[in-house]
Amino acid sequence: MVSISPLLSVRHLLALSLALNVSLMLSIILEKAKLEERVKGCPMKLEHTNISPFTGDGEITDNDETIINLDHGNPTMYEKYWQQMGDRTTVVISGWQFTSYFSDIKNLCWFLEPELAEEIIRLHRVVGNAITNGYHIVIGTGSSQLFQAALYALSSDATEPVSVVSAAPYYSSYPVITDCLKSGLYKWEGDARAFDKTGPYIELVTSPNNPDGFVRQSVVNRSGGILIHDFAYYWPQYTPITAPADYDLMLFTISKSSGHAGMRIGWALVKDEIVARKMVKYIEVNTIGVSKDSQLRASKVLRVISDGSGLAHRFEGETFFGFSHRDMELRWYLLREAVNKSEIFSLPDFTPEFCNYWSRVFEPLPAFAWLKCGDGIEDCETFLRGHKIWTRSGRYFGVSPSFVRISMLDRDPTFNLFVKRLSRIRSPE
Amino acid sequence: MVSISPLLSVRHLLALSLALNVSLMLSIILEKAKLEERVKGCPMKLEHTNISPFTGDGEITDNDETIINLDHGNPTMYEKYWQQMGDRTTVVISGWQFTSYFSDIKNLCWFLEPELAEEIIRLHRVVGNAITNGYHIVIGTGSSQLFQAALYALSSDATEPVSVVSAAPYYSSYPVITDCLKSGLYKWEGDARAFDKTGPYIELVTSPNNPDGFVRQSVVNRSGGILIHDFAYYWPQYTPITAPADYDLMLFTISKSSGHAGMRIGWALVKDEIVARKMVKYIEVNTIGVSKDSQLRASKVLRVISDGSGLAHRFEGETFFGFSHRDMELRWYLLREAVNKSEIFSLPDFTPEFCNYWSRVFEPLPAFAWLKCGDGIEDCETFLRGHKIWTRSGRYFGVSPSFVRISMLDRDPTFNLFVKRLSRIRSPE
Repeated sequence: MVSISPLLSVRHLLALSLALNVSLMLSIILEKAKLEERVKGCPMKLEHTNISPFTGDGEITDNDETIINLDHGNPTMYEKYWQQMGDRTTVVISGWQFTSYFSDIKNLCWFLEPELAEEIIRLHRVVGNAITNGYHIVIGTGSSQLFQAALYALSSDATEPVSVVSAAPYYSSYPVITDCLKSGLYKWEGDARAFDKTGPYIELVTSPNNPDGFVRQSVVNRSGGILIHDFAYYWPQYTPITAPADYDLMLFTISKSSGHAGMRIGWALVKDEIVARKMVKYIEVNTIGVSKDSQLRASKVLRVISDGSGLAHRFEGETFFGFSHRDMELRWYLLREAVNKSEIFSLPDFTPEFCNYWSRVFEPLPAFAWLKCGDGIEDCETFLRGHKIWTRSGRYFGVSPSFVRISMLDRDPTFNLFVKRLSRIRSPE
Repeated sequence: MVSISPLLSVRHLLALSLALNVSLMLSIILEKAKLEERVKGCPMKLEHTNISPFTGDGEITDNDETIINLDHGNPTMYEKYWQQMGDRTTVVISGWQFTSYFSDIKNLCWFLEPELAEEIIRLHRVVGNAITNGYHIVIGTGSSQLFQAALYALSSDATEPVSVVSAAPYYSSYPVITDCLKSGLYKWEGDARAFDKTGPYIELVTSPNNPDGFVRQSVVNRSGGILIHDFAYYWPQYTPITAPADYDLMLFTISKSSGHAGMRIGWALVKDEIVARKMVKYIEVNTIGVSKDSQLRASKVLRVISDGSGLAHRFEGETFFGFSHRDMELRWYLLREAVNKSEIFSLPDFTPEFCNYWSRVFEPLPAFAWLKCGDGIEDCETFLRGHKIWTRSGRYFGVSPSFVRISMLDRDPTFNLFVKRLSRIRSPE
């Protein structure tokens, strides 16, 4: 047998043990790094924005050549907030999830994931912008699909095409969606204020309104009418929450509430069971339900918003609505300043109202700026195109081309470049 | 200064170091457990199937009371495979991903995620079931939406509604989808074999066919016709891949290829650029694109299928198509055995063909069984309902109610219960 000195033996053991410690520590560090990579590893798709980055102290270099595209209401402004939240809203979906078409066969809306239904109800309760008690939730691939589902549900028994109207300026997609397939069930009849046909009609009430941001009520005041309320923008970053809405058919979308347009998730709150069933039928025929991956993700995002927005936490820092409201206030301040400087544009004036959610009075901060060109400029869209600012002409919204709609929800560099360039635009003469 | 014995000191250090060893090991074990929980923690939604589990040696207890619902083609059979794959197809999506509507503004289909486009092309190359070179890929919320997009694209310039036909038995959703909104652009005209109207028409060719599994060609052989090929089932688990398809407009869906029906992802391969652009326009109007979360997940699933299905790996064990083909062969064997035992049902006979993918001859193994009731049973659906087996009557497919369509893609317990019960059914007299 080999004799080993006890001292050497203990020293050797110590050396071995220390070596093991080093190896274990390295293993932990590597494991964490792998986890980080896994959680954050899906690369962000950045659009080709042509935007020069801020230089040094926040100043932007504008060569007047960069195209600033604010035609769509692409809510990329919110990306920054969700980045700050790190992995709080990260979802992990296993390969074996969602092989089935069905989410909950006991629910009227059989393709609605139960956890999303819960989070929708919870968020409306936290924000106080809609009653959910006594309503059926119908989920859709964005609220555009739900608008079509509602048109179908409200007209499927009609013998003549039902008239569809909305007060101008109305959302530019309404006429396109309504008449796209030349349906025999419904027909676009334009400005609700000019509507004088007899027979049944559907009136779309968007409040706050897209494009102009004003709070709205229905305008056609006669029997035979059914209302669809589009509440895409009835959230506390955009407008004072004055009361929980409780209309028959109300549409919401995650694109404009949390800013996740790429998820394509919207929901309807529907009072009448038969109408809800018909809407479900339309979505079944149109797309056999709604992506469950996005529903899962939407439920997580709404949960994090609600968690941070409860009364107890509301003023403790960067809640989602806190961030968004602050950013919208800043953007509207900067925009009004730029408009004042240029002297040829004007913006709507809004009446401040008391918001139950913020418990204070504030002025609406719409997701779109409804800009009017003065100084005899008849086609505002073309005029701004000359300055490489892309907007959407008033004519798509059923009004004069002296107006344009401009998205207020793009990323910071784009928005800052926009107000800077706008402030330098002078009269064409 | 305190004097420390060198021996004690080394021993103390050893004790400390060993304690640290234990602590680090525990930390690693706990970290791994947390990761496991995170990756696998999203609970699986199990539908209420009413199915008794296998008892002991694989025998099923059938009390003849359990409802066996095989009306829908719900592909839950595939869940087992993806569970076996563990986290190979797990996706992690961060909260800040997909705030934008746009995936790739340089692509004709601006809402198609580039990595999904790549994986679609790769899978078709690996499987050899379709040519992709020279085609535009249009992504859809399932292939139902793409069918509607194709109808719109092929009829939007028509002055009269274009006739839409398909040879009976045809997919039961075609007439419902086509006539749902009473479109002025197109109109369902039923069985293509009986079609004798003049003017432009669209013929739907589903191959292999839903419901009966036969390989098909167009049947209306005259000018003025445009074909839509629905290739939902042209995959090597269902049918011999005899040649890469290269028709003008071809539809595919992930529901029936990988089995992820809940993702709602389909794609079209479209030769003509104008048709592709119009299809994109329809999807823009209908749902403003397609869930990016599901696109990301679909690209990962298709990548794993292709990785395992290349020539080098094809015979090395449980590839996706290997698993699926083996399972379908077993199911069709069990079904034919049950049908033979019962003596009152019959099934189609298929001609074996050489499959380029498997490099061997085999007989089609359709995703649906097209069952005929004999013995004077006129309404096969009602007859089977009496035995608590839910199927879909032939009359929805434009043929006799003596036929029913039965899904072959449900989970094992449901399928096994079904064949067991079917084998015991005897003539009603």
